[in-house]
Amino acid sequence: ALSTFRSICGEDGVSLATAVREQHGKDESVHRCRPPDVVVFPRCVEEVSALAKVCHDNRLPMIPFGTGTGLEGGVGAVKGGVCFSLRKMNQILDFHQEDFDVTVEPGVTRKALNAYLRDTGLWFPVDPGADASLCGMAASSASGTNAVRYGTMRENVINLEVVLADGTIIHTAGKGRRPRKTSAGYNLTNLFVGSEGTLGIITKATLRLYGIPEATVSAVCSFPSVQAAVNSTVQILQAGVAIARIEFLDDVMINACNMFSSLSYPVTPTLFLEFHGSEQSLAEQVNTTEEITQANGGSDFQWARDAETRKRLWKARHDAWYAAQALRPGCKAYSTDVCVPISQLPQIIVETKTDLIENKLTGPIAGHVGDGNFHCLMVVDPNDPEELRRVHLFSERLARRALAMNGTCTGEHGVGLGKRALLYEEMGSMTMQVMQGIKDTLDPNNLMNPGKVLLPREPQSEK
Amino acid sequence: ALSTFRSICGEDGVSLATAVREQHGKDESVHRCRPPDVVVFPRCVEEVSALAKVCHDNRLPMIPFGTGTGLEGGVGAVKGGVCFSLRKMNQILDFHQEDFDVTVEPGVTRKALNAYLRDTGLWFPVDPGADASLCGMAASSASGTNAVRYGTMRENVINLEVVLADGTIIHTAGKGRRPRKTSAGYNLTNLFVGSEGTLGIITKATLRLYGIPEATVSAVCSFPSVQAAVNSTVQILQAGVAIARIEFLDDVMINACNMFSSLSYPVTPTLFLEFHGSEQSLAEQVNTTEEITQANGGSDFQWARDAETRKRLWKARHDAWYAAQALRPGCKAYSTDVCVPISQLPQIIVETKTDLIENKLTGPIAGHVGDGNFHCLMVVDPNDPEELRRVHLFSERLARRALAMNGTCTGEHGVGLGKRALLYEEMGSMTMQVMQGIKDTLDPNNLMNPGKVLLPREPQSEK
Repeated sequence: ALSTFRSICGEDGVSLATAVREQHGKDESVHRCRPPDVVVFPRCVEEVSALAKVCHDNRLPMIPFGTGTGLEGGVGAVKGGVCFSLRKMNQILDFHQEDFDVTVEPGVTRKALNAYLRDTGLWFPVDPGADASLCGMAASSASGTNAVRYGTMRENVINLEVVLADGTIIHTAGKGRRPRKTSAGYNLTNLFVGSEGTLGIITKATLRLYGIPEATVSAVCSFPSVQAAVNSTVQILQAGVAIARIEFLDDVMINACNMFSSLSYPVTPTLFLEFHGSEQSLAEQVNTTEEITQANGGSDFQWARDAETRKRLWKARHDAWYAAQALRPGCKAYSTDVCVPISQLPQIIVETKTDLIENKLTGPIAGHVGDGNFHCLMVVDPNDPEELRRVHLFSERLARRALAMNGTCTGEHGVGLGKRALLYEEMGSMTMQVMQGIKDTLDPNNLMNPGKVLLPREPQSEK
Repeated sequence: ALSTFRSICGEDGVSLATAVREQHGKDESVHRCRPPDVVVFPRCVEEVSALAKVCHDNRLPMIPFGTGTGLEGGVGAVKGGVCFSLRKMNQILDFHQEDFDVTVEPGVTRKALNAYLRDTGLWFPVDPGADASLCGMAASSASGTNAVRYGTMRENVINLEVVLADGTIIHTAGKGRRPRKTSAGYNLTNLFVGSEGTLGIITKATLRLYGIPEATVSAVCSFPSVQAAVNSTVQILQAGVAIARIEFLDDVMINACNMFSSLSYPVTPTLFLEFHGSEQSLAEQVNTTEEITQANGGSDFQWARDAETRKRLWKARHDAWYAAQALRPGCKAYSTDVCVPISQLPQIIVETKTDLIENKLTGPIAGHVGDGNFHCLMVVDPNDPEELRRVHLFSERLARRALAMNGTCTGEHGVGLGKRALLYEEMGSMTMQVMQGIKDTLDPNNLMNPGKVLLPREPQSEK
């Protein structure tokens, strides 16, 4: 098939995988690097479709690749096959300023889009941290710090162009359609959002945009307990404060940030907040928030309006990942990801901290607390298999704790390789049969990113 | 099967259809009344499941029925069969105040839920006008006046319990799960939202709730043209005003309202607005909005804060449906429903008004203009087949006009019977094959609300 691939996307559009092993090794510390047999670099949807047809006829697995910033091993080629690197398709298409929408190819990252939009008064708010490909963010149902205000990819994708396993090109909401709402037929857009490449290759995404807020205010506040921070969060949401970000850092995380960035925050549970709005409404939001945090025993409330001071105030949150890694030089960070009903956060965080201590693990906690979503940033020695095993077992216990509290084993990172068994526990066998049925319909030969999301059927057939 | 039905849900839980013909005749003027052979009234999900198994074994069509307030013939029993009336399942379950969620059975309407929530500080905002069943609203992907702020059912359903065609009970996000966000597996919740009963019977819905706003302000403003009203809408959204409702009424509609409710609004395109927030932020939102409307030639800007005056101000909008009907006593109203990118609204409304005049049709226009969604409230003599035919052709032209502008043939009413052919035009044949594939997987014998959403395959096999 190699020569056919070359005839489709050119000599430099095909690469043997050894050359790109690097880009598949990012999450090596937890998910073993599994390079594909070959990488293709299509330049347009027609090439993706033609390549997919060849793969389909030759029963070759296909693995879509955006920026490789996913955290659950979603781009590993567990059965070998052909990696579709989509970085050459990097056009921003069909920007409609009055309609608050834009269409992007899979090579466009969120930062590239926002740079493009800078002078238009609009922006795309979903922010998972990494400068990920927007189509990859759609594929993994990404979200991040400001989902509490603007929603996740689920709420912000209007239409997708998708190449199916046999090369068929579809548009989930019909070609070129971009109404802000619709009730026309089955919601295929949100079936492909979060499908992690297992149902098709996303080659275009039409996204919803928002007006850039007139002003932004950041704030930080320390709390005597996790419960006090969470109570404040619930009350802020109940008060109708249109909070843009509300991030929780535990004492271990704060301590790491203090050391890493030479800061001096009190080493207690802390909320980092951001407000978007008009100058006038911001003052009111900040006042309401300060009243609520004070009533819950919050202290050291600081807030900042100008960009420079805001940046300084939020530096701890922004550098959390690096601060965590710096706790143990030479180690790698791996992020867990569970989401529970907000009221369950204090209990799960307290239990999880006990678990970390008992098992001698380093895992400062940072969370999108307005959504009930939090991460333990596990810092682990990749050369210590025993510690890796302990991290793995801890991560499973954490997920099961979230499930026992009516939560989910993944709030935003997806299932990938690592959470397949947990997904079956979360959904139950009947619901998983429906998912498997949909997979079989769309990809009967199991060629699309095989081995991800769903467990192989043979050994689990009685599950 | 009748005696089995009786053994499952009791003597008074089964009714021959003639007795309930009435409730299936609501949209008679456009979609012919098609009563089922029998109506069953299950009292719990186990009964729904047992009944479905019997229907499945006997290959009897199943038609879920909530309140019958749908507008596209979704509850008609086009192939006879068994209507599942779910009104006896009317419990509100698992209210979680701190987590902003609640679970309801299919007999619970939105007004019943909001009455229940009244003293909790929370509410469920999706409001399609009718006091519809919340599970029915989920099934038809309903929205309404305040979707611009709070989203549609798509954004506000967290989990669904569904009985599949063979009686299997599934939970789309796993049993009891209610995280505010998740990226665990395929998004089955949003596959069933909007499936109009064709994939399964929704027997429980877990919904997202919101804090009741501290205060509400209503406003009305008249415009010299449709363009001026739409420009104002776009600018209000761009300015980041968190508008809760922004409703457009055309001159014909305003005239009808003036006559019906003895009002004296200028007979021009008019916006009805509603703002939710704190007292202080409302003043600012109103000021910003008034500035924008004035800059676009808006006049007669009125606003009101107290409940009584607000009610009076919005009376025209609230009574629009009755005001339209009153234009021609003895006639029935039928609502069209298209949605286009906002920038296209002026053109499509102007073209549509010309079409109405040329075809001597009465169809005042009301729209959820912040979403690009609008309705012509067609007032038609149900005994005049020629006029009914003209309305039908007009409605098709309107939908095609929306499609030509990258919009959808239905923003919120769904496909039902009337828009199946249009759905194929909107989606294209490849996308429809995917929808059909999903239907075949979940309901291989085509027993779930057959004849809705998808066209029968035989005559369209080459489409």
